[in-house]
Amino acid sequence: SSRILMNIEDYHQAAKEKLSKMAYDYYRSGADDEITLQENTAAFRRIKLRPKVFVDVSHHSTDSNSCSVSLLNGQTTCSFPVLIAPTAMHRLADDRGELSTARAAVRAGTVMMLSTLSTTRIEDVAHEHQQALKEYPTSTSQLWFQLYILKDREFTKRLVQRAENAGFRALVLTVDASRFGNREADHRNGFRLPDNMQLENLYDAGLKEAQSDHVSALNDYVAKNLDASLTWSDIKWLRQISRLPIIVKGIMTGEDAQLAVQAGVDGIVVSNHGARQIDTTYTTIEVLPEIVAAVRGMHNKKKVDIYIDGGIRRGTDVLKAIALGADAVLIGRPVLWGLAVGGCQGVVNILEILKREFKLTVMLCGCASLPNSNTPLSIVQMSKSKL
Amino acid sequence: SSRILMNIEDYHQAAKEKLSKMAYDYYRSGADDEITLQENTAAFRRIKLRPKVFVDVSHHSTDSNSCSVSLLNGQTTCSFPVLIAPTAMHRLADDRGELSTARAAVRAGTVMMLSTLSTTRIEDVAHEHQQALKEYPTSTSQLWFQLYILKDREFTKRLVQRAENAGFRALVLTVDASRFGNREADHRNGFRLPDNMQLENLYDAGLKEAQSDHVSALNDYVAKNLDASLTWSDIKWLRQISRLPIIVKGIMTGEDAQLAVQAGVDGIVVSNHGARQIDTTYTTIEVLPEIVAAVRGMHNKKKVDIYIDGGIRRGTDVLKAIALGADAVLIGRPVLWGLAVGGCQGVVNILEILKREFKLTVMLCGCASLPNSNTPLSIVQMSKSKL
Amino acid sequence: SSRILMNIEDYHQAAKEKLSKMAYDYYRSGADDEITLQENTAAFRRIKLRPKVFVDVSHHSTDSNSCSVSLLNGQTTCSFPVLIAPTAMHRLADDRGELSTARAAVRAGTVMMLSTLSTTRIEDVAHEHQQALKEYPTSTSQLWFQLYILKDREFTKRLVQRAENAGFRALVLTVDASRFGNREADHRNGFRLPDNMQLENLYDAGLKEAQSDHVSALNDYVAKNLDASLTWSDIKWLRQISRLPIIVKGIMTGEDAQLAVQAGVDGIVVSNHGARQIDTTYTTIEVLPEIVAAVRGMHNKKKVDIYIDGGIRRGTDVLKAIALGADAVLIGRPVLWGLAVGGCQGVVNILEILKREFKLTVMLCGCASLPNSNTPLSIVQMSKSKL
Amino acid sequence: SSRILMNIEDYHQAAKEKLSKMAYDYYRSGADDEITLQENTAAFRRIKLRPKVFVDVSHHSTDSNSCSVSLLNGQTTCSFPVLIAPTAMHRLADDRGELSTARAAVRAGTVMMLSTLSTTRIEDVAHEHQQALKEYPTSTSQLWFQLYILKDREFTKRLVQRAENAGFRALVLTVDASRFGNREADHRNGFRLPDNMQLENLYDAGLKEAQSDHVSALNDYVAKNLDASLTWSDIKWLRQISRLPIIVKGIMTGEDAQLAVQAGVDGIVVSNHGARQIDTTYTTIEVLPEIVAAVRGMHNKKKVDIYIDGGIRRGTDVLKAIALGADAVLIGRPVLWGLAVGGCQGVVNILEILKREFKLTVMLCGCASLPNSNTPLSIVQMSKSKL
Ligand SMILES: Cc1cc2nc3c(=O)[nH]c(=O)nc-3n(C[C@H](O)[C@H](O)[C@H](O)COP(=O)(O)O)c2cc1C
Ligand SMILES: Cc1cc2nc3c(=O)[nH]c(=O)nc-3n(C[C@H](O)[C@H](O)[C@H](O)COP(=O)(O)O)c2cc1C
Ligand SMILES: Cc1cc2nc3c(=O)[nH]c(=O)nc-3n(C[C@H](O)[C@H](O)[C@H](O)COP(=O)(O)O)c2cc1C
Ligand SMILES: Cc1cc2nc3c(=O)[nH]c(=O)nc-3n(C[C@H](O)[C@H](O)[C@H](O)COP(=O)(O)O)c2cc1C
Repeated sequence: SSRILMNIEDYHQAAKEKLSKMAYDYYRSGADDEITLQENTAAFRRIKLRPKVFVDVSHHSTDSNSCSVSLLNGQTTCSFPVLIAPTAMHRLADDRGELSTARAAVRAGTVMMLSTLSTTRIEDVAHEHQQALKEYPTSTSQLWFQLYILKDREFTKRLVQRAENAGFRALVLTVDASRFGNREADHRNGFRLPDNMQLENLYDAGLKEAQSDHVSALNDYVAKNLDASLTWSDIKWLRQISRLPIIVKGIMTGEDAQLAVQAGVDGIVVSNHGARQIDTTYTTIEVLPEIVAAVRGMHNKKKVDIYIDGGIRRGTDVLKAIALGADAVLIGRPVLWGLAVGGCQGVVNILEILKREFKLTVMLCGCASLPNSNTPLSIVQMSKSKL
Repeated sequence: SSRILMNIEDYHQAAKEKLSKMAYDYYRSGADDEITLQENTAAFRRIKLRPKVFVDVSHHSTDSNSCSVSLLNGQTTCSFPVLIAPTAMHRLADDRGELSTARAAVRAGTVMMLSTLSTTRIEDVAHEHQQALKEYPTSTSQLWFQLYILKDREFTKRLVQRAENAGFRALVLTVDASRFGNREADHRNGFRLPDNMQLENLYDAGLKEAQSDHVSALNDYVAKNLDASLTWSDIKWLRQISRLPIIVKGIMTGEDAQLAVQAGVDGIVVSNHGARQIDTTYTTIEVLPEIVAAVRGMHNKKKVDIYIDGGIRRGTDVLKAIALGADAVLIGRPVLWGLAVGGCQGVVNILEILKREFKLTVMLCGCASLPNSNTPLSIVQMSKSKL
Repeated sequence: SSRILMNIEDYHQAAKEKLSKMAYDYYRSGADDEITLQENTAAFRRIKLRPKVFVDVSHHSTDSNSCSVSLLNGQTTCSFPVLIAPTAMHRLADDRGELSTARAAVRAGTVMMLSTLSTTRIEDVAHEHQQALKEYPTSTSQLWFQLYILKDREFTKRLVQRAENAGFRALVLTVDASRFGNREADHRNGFRLPDNMQLENLYDAGLKEAQSDHVSALNDYVAKNLDASLTWSDIKWLRQISRLPIIVKGIMTGEDAQLAVQAGVDGIVVSNHGARQIDTTYTTIEVLPEIVAAVRGMHNKKKVDIYIDGGIRRGTDVLKAIALGADAVLIGRPVLWGLAVGGCQGVVNILEILKREFKLTVMLCGCASLPNSNTPLSIVQMSKSKL
Repeated sequence: SSRILMNIEDYHQAAKEKLSKMAYDYYRSGADDEITLQENTAAFRRIKLRPKVFVDVSHHSTDSNSCSVSLLNGQTTCSFPVLIAPTAMHRLADDRGELSTARAAVRAGTVMMLSTLSTTRIEDVAHEHQQALKEYPTSTSQLWFQLYILKDREFTKRLVQRAENAGFRALVLTVDASRFGNREADHRNGFRLPDNMQLENLYDAGLKEAQSDHVSALNDYVAKNLDASLTWSDIKWLRQISRLPIIVKGIMTGEDAQLAVQAGVDGIVVSNHGARQIDTTYTTIEVLPEIVAAVRGMHNKKKVDIYIDGGIRRGTDVLKAIALGADAVLIGRPVLWGLAVGGCQGVVNILEILKREFKLTVMLCGCASLPNSNTPLSIVQMSKSKL
């Protein structure tokens, strides 16, 4: 339809119309009864904003960098605190797949995290990213590599080194997927990659059979090849094979966040994997305060970044996460909807919508500067309605 | 349809049928997903009344002034504690627009707040109001002027002085709109004023272009001309250019309420701008107790009036707000529905419905007199159901 | 339809089919938006039962009086703790109207409270009741008279004396209706009594005009004739003109319950008038504990009975009310549904359904005897779900 | 339809299509308005999981016994903590009825509890179970006998002895059914057993008439023959006539759980009889913590097992129950859906689905071993959403 695409949900609906049922369901679905999937977005809506008035916010109109954030102790800058989460198989949405996403990241001046399960090779994504940077030389965009550790440690090591060599600037180690969750839609659809696509980075790691058949093949592949015996000491191993900053993705409790910090990570992503792994976990925004308190209470030397993803669909959601202590947020599905609707430009649109909404909320809430761990959080109340 | 119009919601539905989609949506809509818009009315329904019995309430039948209120330290009297909130562009609803509303205010004996963004000139509204007062000489109605401070301070000063000269009796300074909120319906409809209307008071302030096009033009106008750098010290400037009482509209926290009192205002309006600015703020009735406590705890010399608006649709809502500490309430959309359905008479009907419902509630709850800061609030319990 | 009528809701639906819209709406409706009307029943469902097992409950099968209750300090006995609430105009439901209800009360062995606004004369109802008692000599049924105090005290005195002379055994003074509530359905329907009916007990008190027209006429009658200046001292006046026990109906707060006890009443009915007076009051079952605590904490000499009505539709509701401290419950609309569906037999059926359900619940909850102020209330938890 | 049957709800829908309305309603329905029936499943969904990451869970892939549990102080082993609850009349779902269920229990390596109200004789079920054990010699499956104590104690004694002689390994004494609950669907359907089936174990105890007619006949039979005078001292009597472990089924409060332990039982089942007895009781998972605390706080010599049933439909539900202190869970209706859809194989499928889901949840929550009373419960939070 010719409806104006004004917000993320508009893009979602338009993407639903464009994608095959199999691809749409793969992108959209969550574990079991999708209770957490629904709650991930609903929880944000229940958090209340407390706008402050009569604050001079006029510089937000004139200074286009007024919402930019500095991450990983200054090694990274994003034009506003929204990063692209790692999601598998972008070529299901767009012919150029991850190449389009990488170019969009450059245009929007943010980080793209590339999934291990991408349908484009690490090196090709890096090349496209560099080309785009030449066209947009003021962009501070970076590529980070999302890693699954396989039982085959030699293969894993090669993956990491390929990413480092190609210019990726951080490793995002996903720790909540020793198995894939029970996503029933994929089973009902007999989900499989089309013949002209493959998980390019895993091609040489026994993937052939993983693709030959349907979703159980992919799940079997994971069960057979992903390492379910990982413990915190494996962070050490990763440090030995790479000098990149390490961000651990999939933390849902204060206890685990403290273990992560003790293991020396540079950042953590509070994430329930977009509700795709376990149903009826907490939503991420619910546990963020517990995790922020646990990490900020540790007085460790280096600043450990705290990111969050899951259900962020509005500028107000971004401000809430930031005000509750996150350094930045990640978005997963919104990027896929943008990609499906308009390729690279679609992803740029998604990011611009969120940026526009975020800036408006920042101004209307009376934030002279972005809230951070040093400024009071009083503009957001982590509570349900008082009634 | 020929359905009897018994309550505010009946008028809402009838207005929906009469108005163009563009005008209806402009009046009705709220920011983003309209969660706060829905909650503004729903929150009132969750507050419970605790009726007292065997109280002599017979004088309410005989004394028609038994529910009148005295405001602004005795400078204003309203026949019952419901005032007309400032809303833009009444001529979208009724040919005579703000003239009809002003006349209705006189007939109902209450205050009309005229928006800066009216489709009728300040002086014309004042003239109509004076004419009507001659016809209804016992009415205590007053006009108050709602002000947006523009970057062009000279122009703003002229506006204020025109209002003061025309006989307006108070200034209502709106402080929650450094930008306009994200009202998507207006964008989808390509909202613009019809050719035969304009924002009369802003005509000479670069408005031409603001009207030439669609909603973004209006929003751009606001972004370009409204002053987003206001701070509490600007109240001083306003005091210098006018001797009218100043009421600050758009307070949502106890902290800001105290700053307002310190800045010397005569009243505040607890308001989230009818949920049109930021989505997922608190509802106003939720934060009223916090604000009443903050203001009443300050022991400043003059009494500062506390008003509230947002979602008031029933006589019970009015009593709840009063019992929780408000001096009076404002209604926005209900007036527009009345105007659309029946012009001046429609607005009078709306006010009479609320007055009848309010008086009945007052009697049935066993209020010998209206609750105020000196009488116990026990007839209202600021809590959800106990179950 | 030929659906089996198994429970109160079945009778409600069948009655809806049989009654005219005007009569059905009059019976069914509540004040304003009917939020309290809906909550009155919903609140009961949220209260949780905690069944006890391995209690000898076998006597409930053999002893048919095992659930009977003694009221008004032994002056009254009911076969089970459910009484017939006073409701106006039974002849809208059944040709023989209040006569049918009185006979049903006898057959079921319970109290019928006759409304001042009955469509049958006090003396005729009393006569029918005596006739029926002769046919069912073991029945302990009594008639109580529900009283509205009119401004015309002489007329009111005559009403009371007529009731006392006719053999009524208690006065139920309704104190929550200085005006009638805003029941919009009646206004929309232009509610009026059919020509062949009248409010028999008020005929000589200016009722003619009250009936000539529609609902506003009735409301006007109430406004003109009911005494809105009543205070607790008027209980004294009532004591002077009658020796019958006095029960005050319409108490919703602990404060008022204590005032009632101090005024020397014999019982109170916790009631919001079936949600017909003020919308968004508490539900009655919510405030029962507060009132029980207030009354039981007073150590006054005579036992004051506590009744409750509003929303009781299941045997579990009855047990909950009893376990939370009520001596018995009243039912209003269920009786009207029974009357509409099957006249006298319909009302008997309603009472038998509730009795059967109540006894089953009593057994399954492991109550050797009915809970009362001396036995622990642990079978009922006055709380929402723990989740 | 040819929809893939992936989860318990799929089997439910497929069973609904296959069963007669009378049989389906008998299996599905609950007491009164079925509020507890709906809540039994809903409550589980509201409990939140707190997954732990970076725990070595790889042995769950290799060790197929990693989720097996030891019950009744080592006398019983189940392949995973899900047992088959006693449910009446399996032949309504499948020609071979309880024979199919017994065989499925063997194949899945779990306990089957046979209802007193089975449509197959005790001895025949035992024989089938033994045959199946020969075919699956590694299975640790056992039969337990669910007992209703009849007024005719001699007959009851014979039943118990027949079960003991036939090789049943424990007695499950149901204590929440002194009467059957008010299941209205059965009354509306005129529920009765088809001519070719009977309650085989009760045949000689006056059952003839119980079957001749419809549901009231069955209810009358219960009212006439089940013993409603049972008290805790009757446990002694049962101990005298049998050496089998005794499990008491139907405990809903901490008080009763302590009485059970004092009476010397070997286990209790926290159960509201699948919401078929009293409506608006608590859900079982809500009261589990209270009961676990009461029992575990008693320091009695032998370990008393705590089981729970009611609403378990997902692997996450099983883990929640275990983490909150249950030794194992029972499933009632899911087994009936499996039986209706696919006989013995259907039941095996149901158990395998739950086992697969349970194992996946165990791994993804980072449980190196199953939680038990000695390991912290922090993976499950017994609370609503924090928002
Ligand atoms: C289709 C899809 C594929 C994903 N693939 C990966 C992946 O390969 N690696 C990973 O760490 N997370 C993956 N995720 C999780 C995302 O990184 C992110 O946590 C999640 O999408 C955030 O929630 P949102 O989609 O609500 O924004 C995937 C998510 C989706 C929706
Ligand atoms: C159509 C519309 C236009 C409005 N225009 C103004 C305005 O020009 N100035 C202002 O201070 N508030 C404006 N408001 C906000 C109202 O003054 C008031 O705060 C709000 O409508 C109260 O909520 P209610 O509509 O639920 O009663 C407007 C509201 C509406 C609905
Ligand atoms: C149609 C109708 C008429 C009523 N008339 C009277 C009345 O004349 N006097 C009175 O005290 N209460 C009256 N009531 C209130 C009832 O006595 C009682 O409080 C209420 O019906 C209880 O709630 P329930 O209908 O949910 O059981 C009336 C209620 C209804 C529904
Ligand atoms: C159709 C049906 C028949 C049942 N029959 C019995 C029975 O004979 N004895 C008994 O103790 N429980 C009986 N129950 C209760 C179950 O043992 C168990 O408590 C309940 O089904 C668990 O809830 P679920 O069905 O939600 O899993 C029955 C339940 C159902 C649904």
